[in-house]
Amino acid sequence: MKKYVYMFPEGNGKMRELLGGKGANLAEMTGLGMPVPQGFTITTEACTRYYEDGKTIYPDIQDQILLYLDQLEKITGKTLGDPEKPLLVSVRSGARASMPGMMDTILNLGMNDEICEAVAKLTNNPRFARDSYRRFIQMFSDVVMELPKSSFEQFIDQVKDKKGVKMDNELDADDMSELIVLFKDHYKKSLGEDFPQDPKKQLMEAVRAVFRSWDNPRANTYRRMNDIPHSWGTAVNVQSMVFGNMGETSGTGVAFTRNPATGEKKLYGEFLMNAQGEDVVAGIRTPQPISALADTMPEVYQQFVDISSRLEKHYGDMQDMEFTIENGKLYMLQTRNGKRTAQAALKVAVDLVDEGVCTKEQAVMKVEAKQLDALLHPTFDPAALKAATPITTGLPASPGAACGAVYFTADDAAKAHKTGIKAVLVRQETSPEDIDGMAVSEGIMTARGGMTSHAAVVARGMGTCCVAGVNGIKVSEEDKTLTFADGTVVHEGDVISLDGSTGNVYLGAIATQEAELTGDFGRFMGWADEIRTLHVRTNGDTPRDATQARKFGAEGIGLCRTEHMFFEPARIKAVREMIISDTLEQRKAALAKILPMQRGDFEAIYRAMGGLPVTIRLLDPPLHEFLPHEDDEIKELADEMGVSFDKLKGKVESLHEFNPMLGTRGCRLDVLYPEIAEMQTEAIVSAAINVWKEDGLHITPEIMVPLVSEVNELRFVKKVIKAKADELIEQSGLKMKYMVGTMIETPRAAVTAGDVAKEAEFFSFGTNDLTQMTYGFSRDDVGRILETYFDKKILESDPFARLDQNGVGRLIRFAVAEGKRTRPDIKLGICGEHGGDLSSVEFCHNVGLNYVSCSPFRVPIARLAAAQARVKELGLA
Amino acid sequence: MKKYVYMFPEGNGKMRELLGGKGANLAEMTGLGMPVPQGFTITTEACTRYYEDGKTIYPDIQDQILLYLDQLEKITGKTLGDPEKPLLVSVRSGARASMPGMMDTILNLGMNDEICEAVAKLTNNPRFARDSYRRFIQMFSDVVMELPKSSFEQFIDQVKDKKGVKMDNELDADDMSELIVLFKDHYKKSLGEDFPQDPKKQLMEAVRAVFRSWDNPRANTYRRMNDIPHSWGTAVNVQSMVFGNMGETSGTGVAFTRNPATGEKKLYGEFLMNAQGEDVVAGIRTPQPISALADTMPEVYQQFVDISSRLEKHYGDMQDMEFTIENGKLYMLQTRNGKRTAQAALKVAVDLVDEGVCTKEQAVMKVEAKQLDALLHPTFDPAALKAATPITTGLPASPGAACGAVYFTADDAAKAHKTGIKAVLVRQETSPEDIDGMAVSEGIMTARGGMTSHAAVVARGMGTCCVAGVNGIKVSEEDKTLTFADGTVVHEGDVISLDGSTGNVYLGAIATQEAELTGDFGRFMGWADEIRTLHVRTNGDTPRDATQARKFGAEGIGLCRTEHMFFEPARIKAVREMIISDTLEQRKAALAKILPMQRGDFEAIYRAMGGLPVTIRLLDPPLHEFLPHEDDEIKELADEMGVSFDKLKGKVESLHEFNPMLGTRGCRLDVLYPEIAEMQTEAIVSAAINVWKEDGLHITPEIMVPLVSEVNELRFVKKVIKAKADELIEQSGLKMKYMVGTMIETPRAAVTAGDVAKEAEFFSFGTNDLTQMTYGFSRDDVGRILETYFDKKILESDPFARLDQNGVGRLIRFAVAEGKRTRPDIKLGICGEHGGDLSSVEFCHNVGLNYVSCSPFRVPIARLAAAQARVKELGLA
Repeated sequence: MKKYVYMFPEGNGKMRELLGGKGANLAEMTGLGMPVPQGFTITTEACTRYYEDGKTIYPDIQDQILLYLDQLEKITGKTLGDPEKPLLVSVRSGARASMPGMMDTILNLGMNDEICEAVAKLTNNPRFARDSYRRFIQMFSDVVMELPKSSFEQFIDQVKDKKGVKMDNELDADDMSELIVLFKDHYKKSLGEDFPQDPKKQLMEAVRAVFRSWDNPRANTYRRMNDIPHSWGTAVNVQSMVFGNMGETSGTGVAFTRNPATGEKKLYGEFLMNAQGEDVVAGIRTPQPISALADTMPEVYQQFVDISSRLEKHYGDMQDMEFTIENGKLYMLQTRNGKRTAQAALKVAVDLVDEGVCTKEQAVMKVEAKQLDALLHPTFDPAALKAATPITTGLPASPGAACGAVYFTADDAAKAHKTGIKAVLVRQETSPEDIDGMAVSEGIMTARGGMTSHAAVVARGMGTCCVAGVNGIKVSEEDKTLTFADGTVVHEGDVISLDGSTGNVYLGAIATQEAELTGDFGRFMGWADEIRTLHVRTNGDTPRDATQARKFGAEGIGLCRTEHMFFEPARIKAVREMIISDTLEQRKAALAKILPMQRGDFEAIYRAMGGLPVTIRLLDPPLHEFLPHEDDEIKELADEMGVSFDKLKGKVESLHEFNPMLGTRGCRLDVLYPEIAEMQTEAIVSAAINVWKEDGLHITPEIMVPLVSEVNELRFVKKVIKAKADELIEQSGLKMKYMVGTMIETPRAAVTAGDVAKEAEFFSFGTNDLTQMTYGFSRDDVGRILETYFDKKILESDPFARLDQNGVGRLIRFAVAEGKRTRPDIKLGICGEHGGDLSSVEFCHNVGLNYVSCSPFRVPIARLAAAQARVKELGLA
Repeated sequence: MKKYVYMFPEGNGKMRELLGGKGANLAEMTGLGMPVPQGFTITTEACTRYYEDGKTIYPDIQDQILLYLDQLEKITGKTLGDPEKPLLVSVRSGARASMPGMMDTILNLGMNDEICEAVAKLTNNPRFARDSYRRFIQMFSDVVMELPKSSFEQFIDQVKDKKGVKMDNELDADDMSELIVLFKDHYKKSLGEDFPQDPKKQLMEAVRAVFRSWDNPRANTYRRMNDIPHSWGTAVNVQSMVFGNMGETSGTGVAFTRNPATGEKKLYGEFLMNAQGEDVVAGIRTPQPISALADTMPEVYQQFVDISSRLEKHYGDMQDMEFTIENGKLYMLQTRNGKRTAQAALKVAVDLVDEGVCTKEQAVMKVEAKQLDALLHPTFDPAALKAATPITTGLPASPGAACGAVYFTADDAAKAHKTGIKAVLVRQETSPEDIDGMAVSEGIMTARGGMTSHAAVVARGMGTCCVAGVNGIKVSEEDKTLTFADGTVVHEGDVISLDGSTGNVYLGAIATQEAELTGDFGRFMGWADEIRTLHVRTNGDTPRDATQARKFGAEGIGLCRTEHMFFEPARIKAVREMIISDTLEQRKAALAKILPMQRGDFEAIYRAMGGLPVTIRLLDPPLHEFLPHEDDEIKELADEMGVSFDKLKGKVESLHEFNPMLGTRGCRLDVLYPEIAEMQTEAIVSAAINVWKEDGLHITPEIMVPLVSEVNELRFVKKVIKAKADELIEQSGLKMKYMVGTMIETPRAAVTAGDVAKEAEFFSFGTNDLTQMTYGFSRDDVGRILETYFDKKILESDPFARLDQNGVGRLIRFAVAEGKRTRPDIKLGICGEHGGDLSSVEFCHNVGLNYVSCSPFRVPIARLAAAQARVKELGLA
């Protein structure tokens, strides 16, 4: 039978796929001789089997688990359920990719009535033993039995009230005994059975619960946001317990080797004495900074500093570690590459290169491309900020500036977002259930919790501004009010501003300004540009887009849509005249009015791009998009145009289409009305001639014919283009070149790409339409099924956001190969929205495209993603 | 330089692609030592070059033509333009596939003022010489200069009137001289130049005109109707003239080795003495039957009979021949496999096998599959026919019975057809310009012309009923009246009935009856069934469809659509209840009402198919198709259903889709509402159980999941199906099997077919939707561009009628290969409308499908097409 369980010394850091990140790193630290409580890892394959076997743990796998438990008992000299030498374990999930806060953890497993009292005697610490037991009851109930942890809190409050104390640590051993009775009673009343006393049964149930939790809605949402396949599964780590809650020489903490918010090279973290790990992460008590440990326990501190430093060098990256001190002895419970803000990621990457710890190629891999987004968005305008006085300050948990209307639940924030309102989510503390609302909020503010609280970790991962642990405020979800220390009350919908880099909170809105693109950012992106071979262009229809995109490093325009220009109020009249023309002459007369305006647009765009290549697409949308559809609007327009209502109404009706997406648009318009292509060609080419002559910019216009499904369409339109372009260039006396190419956006164009390339000098994959037609999904309509498709595991991601490599991607691969066979030097690009998506950029690099084109704000992200794809390809990561 | 011209002895019958059908057969007859006037053929490649070179004849090709003219002059001892020994030639088109009447012919080329008088002297027959010259002027003007032939007729009438005669052959040599003067004058007035006197210039212009005529609208229409690619081009045959108009020992005729209407083994044809070929074909004078030649010129007749018989044996098929007798000497001008009616084709094929002339495999190739259609349609009910008295009788030119409203122009008939009226086209005589109107008419009747007239030939090709040469009627296109000999007047829109098999014409409508499917038809189709390996199923949603299709030889149902059953008035209420349900319970309650009705449908269909396989597709259309969309209808329905207008209106609006073709339909419905799939599965499986138990028919239901684009969709729906089906079968105690498969109708399903086949036990290619999505053509909207696409040579055929092998076909090939790789025994079929199209059936055979499924009336056609594909594949044709 396959091996489904590994003792820590059997594994190593490279076995991440099998053992999960946590398991692999525990094995690696074990190998490095670091103080790691021993245990074993149940592999991700066991999780996959669990789902294949209809959500049951196959008996043979159960036997293996018990076999390795036996080994662990031999190593530790303790036995699960043995009152003489009781073994207690933690059971923790550990997926291949880090999923902080998303999966469930159970500590102190092995506790029951008998063991609890045995531990009390053995440790001579009854309070500790009973505290551990009551925690276990809570965690087991919550994670395994789905009886919420919070449902136990009332009993703690009840005992505290009775005793007249405020803090958990003021409760003594007897109070804990009372709590255990109350908890077990609550368990039995709620679930109809006694709390399980058999530790092996506890263990198997806990393992099952971890497997099950891989499929909970929070985990699914997180995976979808982070492109983690469901099929990976999670490993389960069973580790002998060490206790941070054994008294005042015990404690627990988390720390980063560098500051995860700024990247500063300084040990950064926090700890709580006499506590278990969950207390720190949950943010229930406010912990001490890690530096304070130097005073409390100098030797332990020094040992931790040494280990931290060794781990950072060993992994070549900033580490995020968990540790526990049990009766003065340090144990390492976890290490991993630390999550960090975009700014920190940049600084760490640049510093590590400067320190000689890693190469530029490795450095480029240390910033998640999508994090860059945070650096590209506005910060507060310093002047506006200077004039503003913060009403309070919290922890700067995730950088950036946010300004929005206050909402007090994730659901309310999500609803507001749907109506177009920018929301700031204000919570007592966030929990994994809040994730959807957090994802759409401009910023997040919490009353409790530290830098490693749920809110802070998740916000940093999302690149969303977060101010956490704001002391002195009262958040009432019920009344929908936020009350500051000075008595100021903010209601739902009131606007506040958050500075995630300083922790400052302001009433009202504060003006923002553009991001800074020099310094570390500039150096780092320079390296990315050196490394990458894939070019990055932008989709842009205006000189403003062009200017913005050049700032962000765009190397040209990959898609300039001409229809947006048609919609401008000053022009739409001529466009409509063209549409309702009865004769060729009328249509040409109307087009002649549009010509000088289009020429002007193109001149401005050429100038803004300073001679970089510009691909201009001929008119794409169906003509009815330019006409009104309601009778009163038609009437108004008819009057304005001096035609009869009936005529105009008739025209609108004659242009109606059942499936406009598959209708008379793209090059089909040019086949029906070649004079449109002729006018646009004239605008494109004569603008280039003017800019050449006036500015000395040697433009090579790239004219793109949309929606080709048959090479003869392109052949026809190309003839029209060439006739006009050649005539104008001849007249100009310039040696100007131009290119004619096509979008590959119908499946047929992809399938017949070898033929299409006979006429096309370049292909630009229009993956929006290609995705629509390949799936048969109307993008305008797919919304109503997508959520159900995610829920039922039919799709893992939205194919309009992330390129479907298996289907659409296969068509692209085929078209690339066939296109190159016909025309080896054919220029290949992509201009769908996938051009700015990370995995899609990597795909484009691997498939051999020359460039991706994306919206201006995605340009730096695509540049970095392209560099990362190249590093991966070369195996230099 | 490439060889673009072949003397007849240089070619042979196998060189059809290069020399065209006419050229290849002239070469073959030359090789057989038959009396063929010598000449040369300019190849189809020269025609293709003509179009590639921008519609000019490349100078080198012109030189080659003159070189071979030189050779012809040497062989004949005559010279073009030499008054001593004048060579006169015919210039005729000849494409690879026969295109009767579609291409243009010029006779007597080489004539000019000088040559005319020289020929008059040499032949001592001035009338003949001048008649030939005036004919040449007419034909050259018409074909080369586009000055209509008919514009010359007025002068003939003028001369006849002056002389007081009625027939052309009553005009003498002087009259002809007068005509020549009038014709040349008309030519000069109309075209502004003299009639060309240089014979070489005449020749080159004539060749150019033939090439040009390949692209005329009639030719394009004919090609599109007959699936002949534009790229084939036409050859040009230049042949020394022999003259049927030299006097009373000269003549010209056409004949078939067997009767082309009935297949009877008897020489069949007609001839005209002292005439040129055009006179016979155009039907201007009514010719004599071929048998009369035995009396007129017994030796010539016997020689012709011998040649006919040799040719039929040589080619192994019925021949259609043209001949000319010049001063008592027989010349063969053409032979080809003869066009024939469906009935004749069947009889000829069966007889040739019985005579031992050909094999069954060869016989199967002798009936055009699409001709079968004519045999499948109703004939007149004999009883009704007995009661009816024909008002007159014409030539039985193309068999079948037709009944419709009379129209007098092809345009009017076409317009009537568009509004749904069944039209009968009544004409003095038809001309190639009429082809579009003929194609849509139920039947055709002409006042003039014989069995080989344009109307007769074209109607037989189309399988349309035709009565030709109806003497004694007057047809006035102007007054829109048809006047019979007895004075009865029929106006536009009045109904008449035609019997194309007897030539009878009836006033009013006559009841019709089903076609006879036994006799020759039965034997012949039996051979087709023996030969073919591709199965033929039908698309059918009702027991009536199923019964009809079984009669036509369907081997199962390939597509049973369930939505049509939903639309029945008695059921739609429950369907609508289901749609507007707010809860799962409400929806299930509504579905429970539909269940027994669906079960009943399936039982009836299973019984009608008698145990043959039945593939049932789950609900496919978007739900809004079941709801009304106009406010007043919504109001009415709301009242009827007892819900508020607002609720129903809201539901209708919530279901609205921008592109319904790409919307919430097919399996997407089952993913959203698994209870629909569950109900349908129950209906399908429990119906099969009932029929098994009650009728002993062992059904294996094939459940088809539509619109899959991702295997997970199928996996999900299959689970729902299996759960329900297994439960029902278990309860029934039967050992019933069932299959679950899918449509391949999105490009993504085709591209990922290897994955889809993991779940699908069969694939059925839904080529309607696959074509829509592959091209990005909405079938409902494509009409407005298709004509333009044909005109501009962007498409050669409608991809919804004829499978696009280059694009859609490539996806199918890929899917077949990938599907078989995953599941070698996967069952493969097609159920789009292409299942009944000839070239598409051949494609399906070649690509390795197991079956095609088509509408009941296409089943015999598909059976024959499948047999023909097999014969071609085996090389046995």
